[in-house]
Amino acid sequence: MNRFGEHFRIALWGESHGLQIGVTIDGLPAGIPLSEQDFAEDLARRRAGALGTTPRREPDRPRIVSGLYDGHTTGAPLTVVFDNEDTCSEHYTAIAGHDRPSHADRVAWERFDGFNDPRGGGHFSGRLTLALVAAGVVAKKILPATLRFSTAIVELGGCGDPARFEEILHAAASDGDSVGGIVECRVEGIPTGWGEPFFDPAESRIAHLLFAVPGVKGAEFGSGFAAARMRGSEHNDPIVDAAGRTATNHAGGIVGGLTNGNELIVRAAFKPTASIGREQNTYNRTTRSMEPLTIRGRHDVCIALRGAVVVEAAVAIALADMMRR
Amino acid sequence: MNRFGEHFRIALWGESHGLQIGVTIDGLPAGIPLSEQDFAEDLARRRAGALGTTPRREPDRPRIVSGLYDGHTTGAPLTVVFDNEDTCSEHYTAIAGHDRPSHADRVAWERFDGFNDPRGGGHFSGRLTLALVAAGVVAKKILPATLRFSTAIVELGGCGDPARFEEILHAAASDGDSVGGIVECRVEGIPTGWGEPFFDPAESRIAHLLFAVPGVKGAEFGSGFAAARMRGSEHNDPIVDAAGRTATNHAGGIVGGLTNGNELIVRAAFKPTASIGREQNTYNRTTRSMEPLTIRGRHDVCIALRGAVVVEAAVAIALADMMRR
Amino acid sequence: MNRFGEHFRIALWGESHGLQIGVTIDGLPAGIPLSEQDFAEDLARRRAGALGTTPRREPDRPRIVSGLYDGHTTGAPLTVVFDNEDTCSEHYTAIAGHDRPSHADRVAWERFDGFNDPRGGGHFSGRLTLALVAAGVVAKKILPATLRFSTAIVELGGCGDPARFEEILHAAASDGDSVGGIVECRVEGIPTGWGEPFFDPAESRIAHLLFAVPGVKGAEFGSGFAAARMRGSEHNDPIVDAAGRTATNHAGGIVGGLTNGNELIVRAAFKPTASIGREQNTYNRTTRSMEPLTIRGRHDVCIALRGAVVVEAAVAIALADMMRR
Amino acid sequence: MNRFGEHFRIALWGESHGLQIGVTIDGLPAGIPLSEQDFAEDLARRRAGALGTTPRREPDRPRIVSGLYDGHTTGAPLTVVFDNEDTCSEHYTAIAGHDRPSHADRVAWERFDGFNDPRGGGHFSGRLTLALVAAGVVAKKILPATLRFSTAIVELGGCGDPARFEEILHAAASDGDSVGGIVECRVEGIPTGWGEPFFDPAESRIAHLLFAVPGVKGAEFGSGFAAARMRGSEHNDPIVDAAGRTATNHAGGIVGGLTNGNELIVRAAFKPTASIGREQNTYNRTTRSMEPLTIRGRHDVCIALRGAVVVEAAVAIALADMMRR
Repeated sequence: MNRFGEHFRIALWGESHGLQIGVTIDGLPAGIPLSEQDFAEDLARRRAGALGTTPRREPDRPRIVSGLYDGHTTGAPLTVVFDNEDTCSEHYTAIAGHDRPSHADRVAWERFDGFNDPRGGGHFSGRLTLALVAAGVVAKKILPATLRFSTAIVELGGCGDPARFEEILHAAASDGDSVGGIVECRVEGIPTGWGEPFFDPAESRIAHLLFAVPGVKGAEFGSGFAAARMRGSEHNDPIVDAAGRTATNHAGGIVGGLTNGNELIVRAAFKPTASIGREQNTYNRTTRSMEPLTIRGRHDVCIALRGAVVVEAAVAIALADMMRR
Repeated sequence: MNRFGEHFRIALWGESHGLQIGVTIDGLPAGIPLSEQDFAEDLARRRAGALGTTPRREPDRPRIVSGLYDGHTTGAPLTVVFDNEDTCSEHYTAIAGHDRPSHADRVAWERFDGFNDPRGGGHFSGRLTLALVAAGVVAKKILPATLRFSTAIVELGGCGDPARFEEILHAAASDGDSVGGIVECRVEGIPTGWGEPFFDPAESRIAHLLFAVPGVKGAEFGSGFAAARMRGSEHNDPIVDAAGRTATNHAGGIVGGLTNGNELIVRAAFKPTASIGREQNTYNRTTRSMEPLTIRGRHDVCIALRGAVVVEAAVAIALADMMRR
Repeated sequence: MNRFGEHFRIALWGESHGLQIGVTIDGLPAGIPLSEQDFAEDLARRRAGALGTTPRREPDRPRIVSGLYDGHTTGAPLTVVFDNEDTCSEHYTAIAGHDRPSHADRVAWERFDGFNDPRGGGHFSGRLTLALVAAGVVAKKILPATLRFSTAIVELGGCGDPARFEEILHAAASDGDSVGGIVECRVEGIPTGWGEPFFDPAESRIAHLLFAVPGVKGAEFGSGFAAARMRGSEHNDPIVDAAGRTATNHAGGIVGGLTNGNELIVRAAFKPTASIGREQNTYNRTTRSMEPLTIRGRHDVCIALRGAVVVEAAVAIALADMMRR
Repeated sequence: MNRFGEHFRIALWGESHGLQIGVTIDGLPAGIPLSEQDFAEDLARRRAGALGTTPRREPDRPRIVSGLYDGHTTGAPLTVVFDNEDTCSEHYTAIAGHDRPSHADRVAWERFDGFNDPRGGGHFSGRLTLALVAAGVVAKKILPATLRFSTAIVELGGCGDPARFEEILHAAASDGDSVGGIVECRVEGIPTGWGEPFFDPAESRIAHLLFAVPGVKGAEFGSGFAAARMRGSEHNDPIVDAAGRTATNHAGGIVGGLTNGNELIVRAAFKPTASIGREQNTYNRTTRSMEPLTIRGRHDVCIALRGAVVVEAAVAIALADMMRR
C-alpha cells in the first residue's frame, strides 16, 4: 500500500537511487496559497549535513507538477516530485547477496523474488521520507492556524540531556557505530473530537504513520509505557473547566480515541542506524557462509536527528486526515 | 470508521448497554470449518470473573447469523453477534454531566452533540472488544496452522514478577484504585515477507489495531523503546543462515516493515482502569463547578488482564489481513 | 467486498435462506431522529404480493440493534437486521448440480469450491436488496430535505405504456415466462458540485451501486445511449441563468462527473427474471449431460417491479456518500 | 478520489495544460518485464491525428520514474509520467465566465470556488485518459496471457456501418458539429469467478471506471438495455458443458456479478464532443446575460474514436484489480 488517508489522501513513490521521489495529495481544498518556497524550512530540517547525518548531499528541490494554478491549490491532486541526483549506486552492488543486518535487504529480496531495487535500500530507503516531509508541509497548510507544533529529540543514545548529544554522536561516530533516539512531538490547539471510534482512534491513525517511518520501533501517547506503571488515581486526568481542560495530561490529549482539546503528546522510538562502519559478521547468500561485512555508502550516525521533522510531518498528515471540517 | 482490513475485512458495531455487539467479516475463504463452540476458549480468556476483573456477568454466547452453511464458511460475509444481557444502566444516568476523568464521556458528548449513548461508555466501551476477540478466533482459523501464539502479561502495576500480580491487584482493589499493565504477544512461524512498504508495514497494521483497543497508550516491537538506548553494533541482528534466522531478535521479527521469519514480538501498554472506586474531584458540566465524583458500576481493577486475549486477537486479525496467499 | 462508501459507509451480509439479513451503516451524523417505523413505506414498496411478484411472504420487520439511543442516531454504527422466516429450502436442494441458466449457481459453486450456500441463491439472492432498501431509508434521512425522488418503471417487457403493464405480466405469467424492465429514478434539488473527478464522478458512484443490484445489466444518465446518436449541437445543454440551470437536460444533471444543479436522471435496465416456470434444457454437472430443468420455488415475473425502490435506495446511498457537508 | 483499485491500485494526477500527467500503480507483482516502448501501441491508438480527432499534437512520451529496475517491475509503486508540451492556453482565457455548454467549466468553478485550473478543462480534461491508457498497458501485462481483447466502435453518429463512419465525420466537421458513438470491448479467456458479491460485482468495477472516462453516459453488459425487452426464455443462457460454456451469451460473460468463463461483452456510450465549432447561445456569468459563444481551441469531432483504447484500458484495469491470483 503506497497510500494513506481517507480525506487528506497521499500516495507516495520512489527509490533511493531511482529517478524520482514523489507524492500526490488528493482531497485538498481549493484556494490554499502554496509555492515551492513553502517547503524550504521543513526540508532543511530533514537535510543532511549536520553532525551525525549522512554526507550525501541532495538539493531536494521540490517541483509541483500538478494541482497548483496561479499560486493556489485547485482542488485537483497536488503532486510534488524530487529528482534524485547524488546517487553512488556502485557502493551497493558490491554487497549483493551479503545482506546487511537489520536492513530490509534480505526480506525484500525474498518477498520480491530478487527483483527489488537493491541500490541504497530501494523503496525501503529513508530517502522516501522526503516525500512525507513534503506532504507534511501541505498538511500544516490546511490545518487550523491555531495549531502549534513543537518537536524535539528528547533522548539520544539513552541520554535525556541535549547538552550531551554532540558528545554522544562524536563517540559513536569515532567507534564506527550508531545510536538510537526518541522524538517527541507536541501539538497545541487541536479542537476536541478528532479521531474515530472504533478502528480509527487518533492514536491508531498517528501510530500507523509513525511506524511507516523507517527505523521507528515504538510509539506512545501521553504517559505511554509509563502509564502502565501508574495507578488509576495517579494517572487519571481530572477535568477542570467547561472547555475540558485537564489538571494533568497523562492522556497526551486523547481519550476514547478522540482528541480532548489538551496538548497532543506523542513519542516515537528510533532504533540506532542499521548501517554502521564497524565490521559485522553475517550470512552471505552467495557463498552460503557467515562472513565479515563492511558497509560503505554514506549514513547517519543517528536517524532520529533527521527523523524529528519526519515525525512531525507524520503527525501533521494524520491530523489533516482526521480534521473535522 | 468501524471497519479495518483490506483482505480480511471486519466491520464492528454495538454499545455497552445496547441490544447487540456484532462483527461481520468479509474476505474469508470458503470451506473453513467453524462452529460457535470454536469461540469458547478465547471468549473465556476475555470473560470477567477472575481476580481483578469486573463482576459484570455476561454469557457472551456467539451466534453466527450469516456466512456459514453446513459447518463451513461459504465465502460470503460471516457475521457473529452477541446479545447484551446483564446491563445495569441506572448506574450511569446518575452521573450525567459529571464526566468521569480519563473516560470518553466528555469528548463523546461534545463530538456527538450530546446524542452519544452514555450508558457504560456506549460505543467506546471495552465491551466492544468482545467482537474483536470473535474476529480474532476466525483470523486464527485461516492463518497457517504453523503459527504459534503466546501472549502474557509481562508487567502489572510496574512489576515484572507474575508471582506478585495477585498481591498487587488485592492492594489496588482494597484502595479502591486500579493498576496498568503490559501485554506481550509473541508469534512463531510467520513466513518471511508479510507487510507492505511504504504505508502498511507490519508494525503499522498491528499498531493500528492495538491502539483501537480501549486503554492502550503504547506499542512497541522487539526491543522497542529500549532500542533507542542501544548502539547499532548491539542492536543489529546478524543473519545466521539461508532461511534468514538471526542470532538475536531485537527487531521483533520485522525489518523494513516486512516480517523476516523470526519470532514476532509486540508489546502493548495498558493504562490503569480509568473507573476507580475512590472519590475523584472533577468538573461537573451541569453545576459548572469542580465536585467530588464517586463512580459506581462494575469495573476491572486492571484492564490488561482481560486485554491479553484482545491483544492476541488484534495481532491475529492484522496478520490475517497481511497474509500473502 | 461487502462494503460501499467513503463517508456514508455500509456493510451488508446475509443469505436468502440464512438466519438474518443485515446492514451496518457507519459515518452517520449523530442526532438524526429514526425509528423502525420509518422503514415501513420503502419496505412495502419492495415487498412481494402485487401482480408479477413472488408469493414468498416475509414480514420484513427491521430491528435496529445498534447506533440508536432515545430515538436518535448516536454517531456510532447503526445496524439494522431482518430475520428470514418464510424459507422453503427444500425446493432448492433438488436441483443440486443442475445449475439454473443465467443464475449464479454454477459460478458460485466454482468460485467457492462448492461451499457456497445454494439455498435460494444464498448471498447472491435478490433478498439481499432488503438491506439495501433499509440503508436507502437512512440515506434519505440525512440528505437535504430539499431533495425529491421520483422513481418509476418506464418500460416493462419492451413497452413504455404503463396502462399495458398488467396485461404484459399476465401474458408472461401464463406462459411460465418472465419479462425485463427499465427503472428510471429522478432526483430534484441536488446542489451543484457533488461527485469527484477523476475516479469518483457521480455517474461512477451511482452506477457502481446499481450494478450491484441483482439483475441490472445496463445503466445510463440523462440521454444515455441515445446521446451517442445525437450531434453536439443537439445534445449540448445551454446554460440559461446564474444558478446554472440548463434549457435542456441531456446530461441528466451531471457534467464533468459533478452534479450541476439540474435534475438527476438515471435509468437501470433489469434483465427478465432468470427463474422461469417453463422447462429449460441445460447442463447437469452430476449426470454430465444436457437435461430438462423445471425450476420450482417462488419467483417474480418481473424483478424490475420490486427493483424500483431498490434503484431509488442505491441512488440515495450514493448521494449520501457524495454529499458535501 | 484520484485513486481506484484494491489490488491493482492506481492514482492519477494532472491537468490538460499543467506540467505533467501521471499515474502511479501500486500492487504490481515484481519481475514483470516492462519498458517505455511497451506503451507505444496503445498510446498510438489514443493519439490524435486521424480524421475526426483534434489537431493538438503531443508526443506522449512515457517516462517511468519509479518501480522499474533492470527492465523489470520491482514490486514497489510504478510511476509513469508524461510532460504536456503542445498547450495553447490563450484560447481558453478568452472565455472566462462564459462557460461552455455541457462542459465542466461552470460546475468546476462553483465547486472549487473559482480556483480550478480552467485551461483546457484542467483536471477534467480528456487528456487525463493518457494516464489511464498507460495504466491499461501495465494491467494487460499482468493479466493472464490467454486473455484476448477486441475493441471497436460499433456505432458512430447513430450508424452501425463502419463503411459510413468517415462520411459521417466529414459531414459533422463541415457543419462545425460533433457526433457521439458507442464503443464495444470484448475479452475472451477470462476464467470463471472474478468479481465480488455483494458490492463489487464485475459489472460494478468495470462500469465504475468507464463512467470515469470523460464523455461516457451509458454502460451495458451483454444484451444490456435490450435484455430489458426480452423474455426470460429468450434471454436465459443455457449451460452446455462442464466448463460452463453457454449456448448464447446474453449475460455478456457475467452472472451474479462473477465472470462465468464466457466472453466478456461491455459497451460504453459516448456523448458527442461538447466543444463544437458552431456558435452556441449560453449564459455569461460576467455579463449576466445569454450571449453567443464560439469555442476555439482544438477538438475531436467524435471523442469515441480515441475513446476506444481508453475503454479497453478501463476494462483491463478493472480486470487486473479483480483477478484472483
